[in-house]
Amino acid sequence: MRAAIAGASGYAGGELLRLLLGHPAVEIGALTAASSAGSRLGAHQPHLPSLADRVIEQTTPQALTGHDVVFLALPHGQSAAVAAELGEGTLVVDCGADFRLASAEEWTAFYGGVHAGTWPYGLPELPGLREILRGARRIAVPGCYPTAATLALFPAFAAGLAEPDVVVVAASGTSGAGRAPKANLLGSEVMGSVGAYGVGGVHRHTPEMEQNLSAVAGRPVRVSFTPTLAPMSRGILATCTAPATSGTTPAAVREAYEAAVKDEPFLHLLPEGVWPATAMTVGANTAVLQVALDQRAGRIVAVIAIDNLTKGTAGGAIQSANLALGLPEELGLPTNGVAP
Amino acid sequence: MRAAIAGASGYAGGELLRLLLGHPAVEIGALTAASSAGSRLGAHQPHLPSLADRVIEQTTPQALTGHDVVFLALPHGQSAAVAAELGEGTLVVDCGADFRLASAEEWTAFYGGVHAGTWPYGLPELPGLREILRGARRIAVPGCYPTAATLALFPAFAAGLAEPDVVVVAASGTSGAGRAPKANLLGSEVMGSVGAYGVGGVHRHTPEMEQNLSAVAGRPVRVSFTPTLAPMSRGILATCTAPATSGTTPAAVREAYEAAVKDEPFLHLLPEGVWPATAMTVGANTAVLQVALDQRAGRIVAVIAIDNLTKGTAGGAIQSANLALGLPEELGLPTNGVAP
Amino acid sequence: MRAAIAGASGYAGGELLRLLLGHPAVEIGALTAASSAGSRLGAHQPHLPSLADRVIEQTTPQALTGHDVVFLALPHGQSAAVAAELGEGTLVVDCGADFRLASAEEWTAFYGGVHAGTWPYGLPELPGLREILRGARRIAVPGCYPTAATLALFPAFAAGLAEPDVVVVAASGTSGAGRAPKANLLGSEVMGSVGAYGVGGVHRHTPEMEQNLSAVAGRPVRVSFTPTLAPMSRGILATCTAPATSGTTPAAVREAYEAAVKDEPFLHLLPEGVWPATAMTVGANTAVLQVALDQRAGRIVAVIAIDNLTKGTAGGAIQSANLALGLPEELGLPTNGVAP
Amino acid sequence: MRAAIAGASGYAGGELLRLLLGHPAVEIGALTAASSAGSRLGAHQPHLPSLADRVIEQTTPQALTGHDVVFLALPHGQSAAVAAELGEGTLVVDCGADFRLASAEEWTAFYGGVHAGTWPYGLPELPGLREILRGARRIAVPGCYPTAATLALFPAFAAGLAEPDVVVVAASGTSGAGRAPKANLLGSEVMGSVGAYGVGGVHRHTPEMEQNLSAVAGRPVRVSFTPTLAPMSRGILATCTAPATSGTTPAAVREAYEAAVKDEPFLHLLPEGVWPATAMTVGANTAVLQVALDQRAGRIVAVIAIDNLTKGTAGGAIQSANLALGLPEELGLPTNGVAP
Repeated sequence: MRAAIAGASGYAGGELLRLLLGHPAVEIGALTAASSAGSRLGAHQPHLPSLADRVIEQTTPQALTGHDVVFLALPHGQSAAVAAELGEGTLVVDCGADFRLASAEEWTAFYGGVHAGTWPYGLPELPGLREILRGARRIAVPGCYPTAATLALFPAFAAGLAEPDVVVVAASGTSGAGRAPKANLLGSEVMGSVGAYGVGGVHRHTPEMEQNLSAVAGRPVRVSFTPTLAPMSRGILATCTAPATSGTTPAAVREAYEAAVKDEPFLHLLPEGVWPATAMTVGANTAVLQVALDQRAGRIVAVIAIDNLTKGTAGGAIQSANLALGLPEELGLPTNGVAP
Repeated sequence: MRAAIAGASGYAGGELLRLLLGHPAVEIGALTAASSAGSRLGAHQPHLPSLADRVIEQTTPQALTGHDVVFLALPHGQSAAVAAELGEGTLVVDCGADFRLASAEEWTAFYGGVHAGTWPYGLPELPGLREILRGARRIAVPGCYPTAATLALFPAFAAGLAEPDVVVVAASGTSGAGRAPKANLLGSEVMGSVGAYGVGGVHRHTPEMEQNLSAVAGRPVRVSFTPTLAPMSRGILATCTAPATSGTTPAAVREAYEAAVKDEPFLHLLPEGVWPATAMTVGANTAVLQVALDQRAGRIVAVIAIDNLTKGTAGGAIQSANLALGLPEELGLPTNGVAP
Repeated sequence: MRAAIAGASGYAGGELLRLLLGHPAVEIGALTAASSAGSRLGAHQPHLPSLADRVIEQTTPQALTGHDVVFLALPHGQSAAVAAELGEGTLVVDCGADFRLASAEEWTAFYGGVHAGTWPYGLPELPGLREILRGARRIAVPGCYPTAATLALFPAFAAGLAEPDVVVVAASGTSGAGRAPKANLLGSEVMGSVGAYGVGGVHRHTPEMEQNLSAVAGRPVRVSFTPTLAPMSRGILATCTAPATSGTTPAAVREAYEAAVKDEPFLHLLPEGVWPATAMTVGANTAVLQVALDQRAGRIVAVIAIDNLTKGTAGGAIQSANLALGLPEELGLPTNGVAP
Repeated sequence: MRAAIAGASGYAGGELLRLLLGHPAVEIGALTAASSAGSRLGAHQPHLPSLADRVIEQTTPQALTGHDVVFLALPHGQSAAVAAELGEGTLVVDCGADFRLASAEEWTAFYGGVHAGTWPYGLPELPGLREILRGARRIAVPGCYPTAATLALFPAFAAGLAEPDVVVVAASGTSGAGRAPKANLLGSEVMGSVGAYGVGGVHRHTPEMEQNLSAVAGRPVRVSFTPTLAPMSRGILATCTAPATSGTTPAAVREAYEAAVKDEPFLHLLPEGVWPATAMTVGANTAVLQVALDQRAGRIVAVIAIDNLTKGTAGGAIQSANLALGLPEELGLPTNGVAP
């Protein structure tokens, strides 16, 4: 399979390349970008010496044609036009937000502009989605925070153990904010500091979490979501809590989570009493989970760690692409991380 | 005023010393500790060259007598015995947990053993406490997380805008875990990683938060509290959310917080739309606050940053001690932090 | 004394303000900047809540007149024009490089353009300079790396124990690179990474180190200087080594350093066998030193830690300004740092 | 091939496991350790979920027999006894220091005790060593710092461009100090701080560097080595400088380095003007190099970045083991790293 990457000079593009370099069924084709077109890939991804001398091309339909799969890691709003030029036979995997939301109204409220449409949602662990992704030609890769929050709470909602008043507070590494230079993302600003942003229901990933959990719960779930930025390059730790349905027992919660992860290659439920840390997942496509029932406060508390660039973006993209291309779901994706 | 510090070789002790060295009304007397007695202070607090050659004494009543104020930064359960030996005329400020909780039952449930009693609670910003602290001879310094969560939410509860179903998720720097060497606190483990611990209603600071907020609300408040450890030495960022009382408006929330901080020297409410980060508070006794009403989710979301060692421990201790000693509340306490 | 700060929105400006806020003989006057003129200081220095609502003015001679002392924290090449407009009676302290080098040739080789001149060099610890600084009306604040390297090695050269073939390798925190947003300074890039830059004798601080050490040695000293960027916001750790003069003994080296620091308020020589770390100096105007004679390799190895923003810039500036203004040299300057 | 790992619960052991899990010709056999024997591997290496439920055995000859290759990651002084019990047919790869030095005198001076002997030295890039490693049954894996310093400077010495008065200053991540809990390695101590240690010619890796470079130079090379600890988990950045032989030109230096890396799969020379950073090598077996001739100071300055746990320990061990086992040298070893 030949794969093209549009947006090869950014962080998501770099992670796609790192993973695809180790993918036994994929050959790396065109590498494209916008402002960095014409430069060596090594100038942008110096951790990938085996591609250092490849030259980045301009992102155009011409550059991207002739591949079996095209990964788009572009700014919001650009994917639809690019995808329209690629044939129906090409698998297009969009790492951006353009095709994630089903509701045009929500789209416009949170992103502005016109809704581009909805593509199969690349989270195979959610009930029913794995089948839809098999053979798909268009895939919308979930957002990094929604990946975390959804995987943390879907077992509770699927088992009917949680009430739909969810609070999610998540800490993300700075790579989630991208590579464009901004003063607030300077190392001097972020090292030694945790800060909040996008508070009060305004973060764009909020409706995506609600969409996912509502689908699992079979009724509307509302989410209070607060993202924070932590002094690390990679990783998301999400604390996700919902009121426990009356009569819920610790054993029932544990059983629901054990059942949910049982056949999932990339969900890892820790032994009881051990809690996730993002260091458990660096560079891996694994989501590490734990859950407790706080009987005093009457809430289920699920905590999840993922690598925002791997399971949260590039790894999740390749996992779904594997399904779409008829390959084994886990092919080329590391289960184990890099630590310490 | 002569001040003694018991526990001078730990992180709380070091911060007490740093602040007291800049306090115009305090002279530093005895420095005591347990296992590090007999060594130079410089071996433990190399950032305090002006005290480098002072020798640490063993913590005994004899060593601590003859001071106007004694700060205790000891492991749980040791403060009562030490305080009993000090006269009634000496101000004893306990940075530990022994005298924070009013409920003996809660104490035993969360700390084990027998409740030592209750001392005036050193959080002058809470309604009524400033007056109690004036002239007090015993002070229980609040826990670092309860300081953050209480200051973040008391304005909402005091104004009747919040329902008592609180969720607090906080990120703390590693100094909060103390200086005893443990494998999970090694730099190699904590750098680049955010991890959860004490999840599910079991953290000892939970009943203290409930005690404080219940007192303000005038009815029982329950708190779901999840602490996380972030890759920074200092700082707590707490995201504190509660359902908004029906009919609450954004303007009412803003007003409540503006009123609450108005005359407080160490509460700083940011301009609307700007969110706290712990870097705003390093080394300062200031709590930096922001609040929003998430009308979609129906929750008030307050975010607060403090330095866990300053406002969260040593600075808070000195602030209350100033009141008890009849000194200006702000004396010797920095409002401004060290950044970047 | 009224002080103005030109460049108040940058890192050096922020540190000047933090220190001057605690300076008992200084009142803060005009705060000026270029592109951030017109905005609240709180938008740039959120760690200084006591100045949050001050509005930054445009840097003009008008704004800066009427002060006893003007601190310039401007980009290279702008200080001469500003200083020319200020009267001879105003103390002008330039934190930039414009007036540091005596050699116009070196200036042009390393900075380009025309040499602006030479002002009294603000490193009071160097033999002879303290006297020159007393009563000066113009001061050139040393560069951060030259401050470190010079203080580390001048005792050896002053005592005739070192040969003039110096190697300096230093690690700096990222605040040394300033606040302008650049992709290579993003948190995602610098966290978890140490990298070299300006290697091979091209860094602008090289001739300044040579100028200082040559003056002390009384003969030309050449320096091979390699700077590196470390994942921390503040601090410089410099390893400075020179061949030992034949016959040099460990005792002679120790004596030379003890003599050099004896009456210096801001030089702190550690006990033998203890080595500096930048954490010992955060926010302090102290330089922490240690030295060893490597008899196997025949070299003196001196290691020094400073805070690049304090002793390396703003604190050094105020120390020299105190001398120039006839104030006690240590006034308003913290000896002790903030740790952990 | 079946591989056993002795010391599976430490950092070197964890990295060996991570790499061997991705090695197509290796099956993981016994995992042994000392104090952590009997516990789940997941309790020590939570980033390796695919081995989480394997139980660690006690390190004994019995546990280690029956493998094609045994990797020893043990404290100093224990490897000889273990190796003696394993047959001559088993490849034993010692990640410790016991068999690195040829000189018994140097061994005793730097490590104390009796020299255990000398094994083939696992640095295939050094002239002549690759051939020796092919078919070897015993391998001494180089120290992490000597790997860096030797690879940085051997091209200059091999080409006769450098004089033997070397200065090496290196920054290491904290994983190099191991996993035993010590107060000075706590996250609170190391974050935000660079500190020196083992200064003045006393670090144990000094004679190993001299041994390697002297062999290449054909004459005694002396090294002044200063290690520092940087706030990162992984990585070494070493600045390595030596006087340039009279008449050396920049072109000659560049040519020497280009020739040295030409056929080496794990040496990556950056384009001129680009300098190494440890982030380029995280998790990769690649050494990233750059060199300059400082004509002003008359020194060659080579800078190298490696991952101390990969190329500096576990990756280097597997690279040499591949040669010894008759496998392709690069098999199972990542060339590309994980960034940001």
